Amino acid sequence: MSESPFRGVIPPVVIPLTAKKSLDLDAFHRSVNRMIDAGVDGLFFLGSSGEVAFLTDAQRYHVLQEAVAVVNGRVPVMAGIIDMETMRVVDQAKRAASFGVDALVATAPFYALGGPKEVERHFRAIREYTDLPLFAYDLPCCVHTKLAPEMLMRLGKDGVIQGVKDSSGDDVNFRWLVIENEEAGHPMQLLTGHEVVVDGALLGGADGSVPGLANVDPYSYVEMWKASQAGDWNRVRELQDHLAKLMFVTRGVRATVGFGAGVGAFKTALWQMGVFNTNEMREPVQRLVGEDVENIVAVLKKQGMMDPDAPVRQ
Amino acid sequence: MSESPFRGVIPPVVIPLTAKKSLDLDAFHRSVNRMIDAGVDGLFFLGSSGEVAFLTDAQRYHVLQEAVAVVNGRVPVMAGIIDMETMRVVDQAKRAASFGVDALVATAPFYALGGPKEVERHFRAIREYTDLPLFAYDLPCCVHTKLAPEMLMRLGKDGVIQGVKDSSGDDVNFRWLVIENEEAGHPMQLLTGHEVVVDGALLGGADGSVPGLANVDPYSYVEMWKASQAGDWNRVRELQDHLAKLMFVTRGVRATVGFGAGVGAFKTALWQMGVFNTNEMREPVQRLVGEDVENIVAVLKKQGMMDPDAPVRQ
Amino acid sequence: MSESPFRGVIPPVVIPLTAKKSLDLDAFHRSVNRMIDAGVDGLFFLGSSGEVAFLTDAQRYHVLQEAVAVVNGRVPVMAGIIDMETMRVVDQAKRAASFGVDALVATAPFYALGGPKEVERHFRAIREYTDLPLFAYDLPCCVHTKLAPEMLMRLGKDGVIQGVKDSSGDDVNFRWLVIENEEAGHPMQLLTGHEVVVDGALLGGADGSVPGLANVDPYSYVEMWKASQAGDWNRVRELQDHLAKLMFVTRGVRATVGFGAGVGAFKTALWQMGVFNTNEMREPVQRLVGEDVENIVAVLKKQGMMDPDAPVRQ
Amino acid sequence: MSESPFRGVIPPVVIPLTAKKSLDLDAFHRSVNRMIDAGVDGLFFLGSSGEVAFLTDAQRYHVLQEAVAVVNGRVPVMAGIIDMETMRVVDQAKRAASFGVDALVATAPFYALGGPKEVERHFRAIREYTDLPLFAYDLPCCVHTKLAPEMLMRLGKDGVIQGVKDSSGDDVNFRWLVIENEEAGHPMQLLTGHEVVVDGALLGGADGSVPGLANVDPYSYVEMWKASQAGDWNRVRELQDHLAKLMFVTRGVRATVGFGAGVGAFKTALWQMGVFNTNEMREPVQRLVGEDVENIVAVLKKQGMMDPDAPVRQ
Repeated sequence: MSESPFRGVIPPVVIPLTAKKSLDLDAFHRSVNRMIDAGVDGLFFLGSSGEVAFLTDAQRYHVLQEAVAVVNGRVPVMAGIIDMETMRVVDQAKRAASFGVDALVATAPFYALGGPKEVERHFRAIREYTDLPLFAYDLPCCVHTKLAPEMLMRLGKDGVIQGVKDSSGDDVNFRWLVIENEEAGHPMQLLTGHEVVVDGALLGGADGSVPGLANVDPYSYVEMWKASQAGDWNRVRELQDHLAKLMFVTRGVRATVGFGAGVGAFKTALWQMGVFNTNEMREPVQRLVGEDVENIVAVLKKQGMMDPDAPVRQ
Repeated sequence: MSESPFRGVIPPVVIPLTAKKSLDLDAFHRSVNRMIDAGVDGLFFLGSSGEVAFLTDAQRYHVLQEAVAVVNGRVPVMAGIIDMETMRVVDQAKRAASFGVDALVATAPFYALGGPKEVERHFRAIREYTDLPLFAYDLPCCVHTKLAPEMLMRLGKDGVIQGVKDSSGDDVNFRWLVIENEEAGHPMQLLTGHEVVVDGALLGGADGSVPGLANVDPYSYVEMWKASQAGDWNRVRELQDHLAKLMFVTRGVRATVGFGAGVGAFKTALWQMGVFNTNEMREPVQRLVGEDVENIVAVLKKQGMMDPDAPVRQ
Repeated sequence: MSESPFRGVIPPVVIPLTAKKSLDLDAFHRSVNRMIDAGVDGLFFLGSSGEVAFLTDAQRYHVLQEAVAVVNGRVPVMAGIIDMETMRVVDQAKRAASFGVDALVATAPFYALGGPKEVERHFRAIREYTDLPLFAYDLPCCVHTKLAPEMLMRLGKDGVIQGVKDSSGDDVNFRWLVIENEEAGHPMQLLTGHEVVVDGALLGGADGSVPGLANVDPYSYVEMWKASQAGDWNRVRELQDHLAKLMFVTRGVRATVGFGAGVGAFKTALWQMGVFNTNEMREPVQRLVGEDVENIVAVLKKQGMMDPDAPVRQ
Repeated sequence: MSESPFRGVIPPVVIPLTAKKSLDLDAFHRSVNRMIDAGVDGLFFLGSSGEVAFLTDAQRYHVLQEAVAVVNGRVPVMAGIIDMETMRVVDQAKRAASFGVDALVATAPFYALGGPKEVERHFRAIREYTDLPLFAYDLPCCVHTKLAPEMLMRLGKDGVIQGVKDSSGDDVNFRWLVIENEEAGHPMQLLTGHEVVVDGALLGGADGSVPGLANVDPYSYVEMWKASQAGDWNRVRELQDHLAKLMFVTRGVRATVGFGAGVGAFKTALWQMGVFNTNEMREPVQRLVGEDVENIVAVLKKQGMMDPDAPVRQ
């Protein structure tokens, strides 16, 4: 098994806002500390769950500055450098690096249409501008390109990328990537982003997970990771079943779809649990209200994440 | 755990052809008997791997007639009733039933554009015309509709369908379906069609698998199922790793994509292993030749499925 | 300009049903005769609008038999031979030919995944089994494959296909196809299926149209075609504007989407106008009712297709 | 017809680079002046063709500064404010406005998943931060959301947007939008981005076009616009036929697909015609070379855009 520090449980950090939609430092510190105290192995800022698409550059760097300060070296910090095409991403990389993060995470280029040649050149060009560990973020739902395992293996063997965050939902290709990475001497850390089926990914040999739901329940993800390392697969399954049921917070949302339902539900859960002070969202997304909030509270109570008698926050 | 006979390993049967592209009964019997002798729990005819899209109706019923005869009650027989819209499917259902099959498998309607109302009505209408167990085949890559778990649960609870063959690649929704099916008293048998990640599905509670690759290596799938029932997850993982590597027969194909590469590789493997007499395909698909065949043989030898010194069949 | 009979206005015939969902011969004759009397240049049976996906084989051949009888040589009859893969389509071709139709219309293969090699081979294989004129039906919304203009030109030059019915919505490639077809000596008849923008297609050199909406208003399509032949483009535009507004019958539908909204609206319009006796649809689609019907009547009245004082049929 | 200045021919300006991939001011001035001298009605900077996805913010504002200076009020200047989600777009809007542009062009939000509520709120939120005319850019190929005509009409009537640049390829919905816009008193300028079928759009009532190909041949687009205003549709068709054939510069490209083939071909054509000094592209896209260049030159010569005896630039 690899000596890389980028393994285990590395939550993509959800960002709390004040009622006026600015960064809520009080809740931010509370949530980050809660995850570190629970034993997570790293933290990923400015990912999709971390509102990277919604933040101006100034807001992005505010998050990174506060993140590095509050984490203070306790765990490695990964930073998303998400932008449309290569030189914009390089621009983000240079600025993120200046805040002292430990690794960078980049998607395939998006917006302009391209083909596989451009995708591979994109990662190689980024590498020419940074010495930090670089993770490829496989996220076809957002960037509309699936990263081919063959290309990832080439990039890994050539030292262009040091790992993959796989949120593609393509478990077959992920399994093949794990196998080929192992046969090549493990040049990459392979992390799954699918919080509901982490157990299968770990059984199949993944190096860890990047579960958005770990903002809500970091304890169970940490325990699941430890159980998997100990080979206690029945316990892994039990914990995953609990977490899959906890993920129902996102399923009952009626007001909207996508980010507003998913991260909107996480924020609402953290608000109801007292970790966040609000469930505010950034434009153009609106915060969840009414029945959507009540349904989330019902799931939290059923899964033991809230006192059964606690009232619903308004 | 359910008492249903539709559990464990139920391969979708790949169809051998003679050099003149007619059903090769000799090879068909050999392959079916080989899988039954290996201990499979059922067989699924006229699925996607079983060339259902390529067969005229007369050819479909020829397959079913021979299938029921050769299986001869040793394991349950499932039959695909794949067609464009409801009454064409009902037509297929009536005729399939007349051959004495044990269960029917239907996809969402395809070709004409519709919405969720039409999909649900489709399955309910089929149920009005048959008493046989009915499985919903979730196959968005072919029919361009994902079956919603909420709808499947309604159909399961109402006795419309008795199970799901999930080839959607959406493991998150499959996991949720498993959880909700369990909470509802297990009205459905939930089978995964993803041969490369069966281990994770079994850890998550699937009732079995429908792996096309089991035509090539039924033994390992049967052993994996038994190991999972015994809770020996390390053995499950070892077998799945072998099978994931064996699936590389489909990955190196250069001549074409899709069915011609996937089922084309299975046929070529079975031909090279001496189970099939040819690797012929039906129009408009062409059989694999040359380097594609050599690459498949190399994978088979690496995974111990062929004598390392055996020559490549021409 | 070509001497081919397959030019001008060739409506895809919508099928009237009785209240018990069987073919309504009375209304069928009335509607077909109405279109021929209006001056259409041909009729296309068993297209998407003609319920081909929903009809059992027996029902399909019932339609063809009645169609050939009622048309009785007054205009050419085209017949859809829509099925999943090559030999099933060939089966449909042989049977359709036996009813005396004048041309066949086939889509790319669907359901099984394939690539461009299989698509081209598909049309060439069909040609080996029939001497009738063959039209390629470009319908990516239903078959999920766009027919490449380069391939269509090869098939046209080789005498494999005699025309294209383009319902792809890709007007850029249609324009290029028109240009290349002209440069090659016009081997193919190029017909557009997009009833709302026929004017632009005719200005660009299309040989005709296959507009579903011509079931509702054949007169305006015939007049538009004649105006385009006379170079009276302002009149062409006026007629197209009327027809684009008439197409709003499909836009206000709330109960469902796709075929049920589109052909459902055409049937409802024909029913309200007294051409059809019902607006029944085939399983799993349900007929439009209530407000959807009222909205359609409002459009018909606004566009002068119904007496403003006529009551809404129930 | 509207009094708005945003009508007629408004090319999206393609950006020339030096051999070192920096903005080539010499060629930039030459190309912009050439289009203005040809009689275009406006210019659109920082669109998809204008490399907006590939430019860092500093590079974007360099382009705008030079654009406003060289245009110097001769025609209106539109500026793309393309970014991922609302507040990033607002940031771009504020900065673009500071350079003195005359109108802003924004797409639907992209990257984060959302629904129709978020899309509508996005445009309304942008309006709260700017007084400039705002155009909605309908570009589903890049942002994976189609702008619904009903929503566009609401935004137009409410004064949120002043026009639409339609590059959706959905001519049916564009036609309906034209009709409804007219019925509402023409609150929006409706421009088509499909350079190959501008004739049909103009016949149908579009207010103008935004054709990338007008960088190569602005004269024909200007003449086509004038002919359409004069009702000379046969001349319109002739010019469009020429332009459709000229667009074949993009069709023969073998080295890549998408932006690199499309804008890559435009740059190569402008280079060969002596307007640009190179055909350099920005990372990760590579410039066209070899046979691709020769094919483009052949098209240019065939369409009379280059001296038949001119050598191919290397």
